[in-house]
Amino acid sequence: MKLNERGLLVVISGPSGVGKGTVRRALFQMPNHDLVYSVSMTTRPPRNNEVDGVDYFFVDKQTFLNRIRENKFLEWAEFVGHYYGTPRDKVDEQLDRGKEVVLEIEVEGALQVRKQMKDAVFVFLVPPGKKALYERLKNRGTEHLSTIEKRMKKAEGEFMLAHKYDYIVVNDEVNNAADRIMAIIRAEHAKTERTIHNYLKMIGE
Amino acid sequence: MKLNERGLLVVISGPSGVGKGTVRRALFQMPNHDLVYSVSMTTRPPRNNEVDGVDYFFVDKQTFLNRIRENKFLEWAEFVGHYYGTPRDKVDEQLDRGKEVVLEIEVEGALQVRKQMKDAVFVFLVPPGKKALYERLKNRGTEHLSTIEKRMKKAEGEFMLAHKYDYIVVNDEVNNAADRIMAIIRAEHAKTERTIHNYLKMIGE
Repeated sequence: MKLNERGLLVVISGPSGVGKGTVRRALFQMPNHDLVYSVSMTTRPPRNNEVDGVDYFFVDKQTFLNRIRENKFLEWAEFVGHYYGTPRDKVDEQLDRGKEVVLEIEVEGALQVRKQMKDAVFVFLVPPGKKALYERLKNRGTEHLSTIEKRMKKAEGEFMLAHKYDYIVVNDEVNNAADRIMAIIRAEHAKTERTIHNYLKMIGE
Repeated sequence: MKLNERGLLVVISGPSGVGKGTVRRALFQMPNHDLVYSVSMTTRPPRNNEVDGVDYFFVDKQTFLNRIRENKFLEWAEFVGHYYGTPRDKVDEQLDRGKEVVLEIEVEGALQVRKQMKDAVFVFLVPPGKKALYERLKNRGTEHLSTIEKRMKKAEGEFMLAHKYDYIVVNDEVNNAADRIMAIIRAEHAKTERTIHNYLKMIGE
C-alpha cells in the first residue's frame, strides 16, 4: 500500500561526464516503476543517434530565449555555449498523475529547481574520483581535448556543491548507482512528511 | 562504492500486533545485507518455540531492575506487566563494525532511543487499518480477549505517535514492508550528511 499518491520529482545531477544519461537509462530499464522523464529542450546540435523529441527537443536559440521570457522552464542553463531547459508544465502534469518525474540535468539547473520545488529529491551523482571523470570524458570520444579541459575545470567547482543535494551516489558501476537511486525513490515515498496525511485518514476509518 | 562506512541503527517500531517480528524476519532473509540484531532482554515468559539467547534473553525481574540501575540498556520499557530492554554495548560494537543494527521494539522504547541516538533511522510499521490490527491480534491466538482489548487501547495512543518517526511503512504484505525497509536503509546510507565526509576525501585524492 502506497500512502503517498503524488509522484516525486527526482533530480539527478552531477558533474558533466559522470554518466547521468547512462544511469538514467539503467533506472528506466528496471522493473515495476512509475518513472517518466520530461524531455529537455536544448540549442545544442544532436549527437550521433539522438532523436528530436526523444532525447531532447532541439530548437534554435531564438525559440529558446522566447520561452525563457515566457517563464516556461522549470530550470534552464547555458553550458559550453548551448542552452538546456525543462518545460515546467510537463513536470506538473506528471506529478499530479502520480508519476515520478526524473530530471537529468546539469548542476546549475538543479540548483534552480531546488529553489522552486521544495519537496523534490536531489541526487548528486559523482565519479569514484577526479581521475575517473577525466578518463570517462576522454573515452567518450565526442569532444575535443580543449572541451574536455573546459569541462574538467567546471567539474572542479561543481564537486564542491555536493552539500546542496539530499543524496550523494557514486557511479562506480551503472546498475549499482541505478539500484541506489531506486531505493532512494522508494524510501522517500515512505517519509513521514509525505505519508502522515493519508496515514491519519487510513487510521481514522 | 559505499561512502558511509558506519552501520545504521534501524529502529522498527509500531503498535503491538502489527507484525514487527514477522517483517524483521523477512528482512533478514533478504540477500546481500549487513543486518544484525541485538537480542533483547525480557522478563516475560517464553512463547512456544522461543529460544533463550536467540529470540530474547529471558531473565527474572530482579536481574532486569539491576541492569536498569547500572544504565546498561539503550532503552527499556514495561509492557503489559513485563520488562523489555536493549543492551547498549552490543549495539555500539556492531555499528562500529559497519553492521546495520535492527531494533524491533515497542513505541515507548523507540522514543527513548530517539533521544539518545540522533542519527538512528526510525521506522513506524502500521497495519492497513485499525480493524486489521484487531484481527491480527485475535488470530495470533496466544492472548486472552482481555489482553487483546488492553493492547488495542494502547495501540490507539501509539497510532498518534507516527509523526515522531522518520518513515511510515504499511504492513499490508510482509515482503512489501521488508522491501521498503531495505530501500530505506540503502537510501539512508546515501544521505548527504552521512556521505559528505568520505566524499570530500575521495574527491581530494
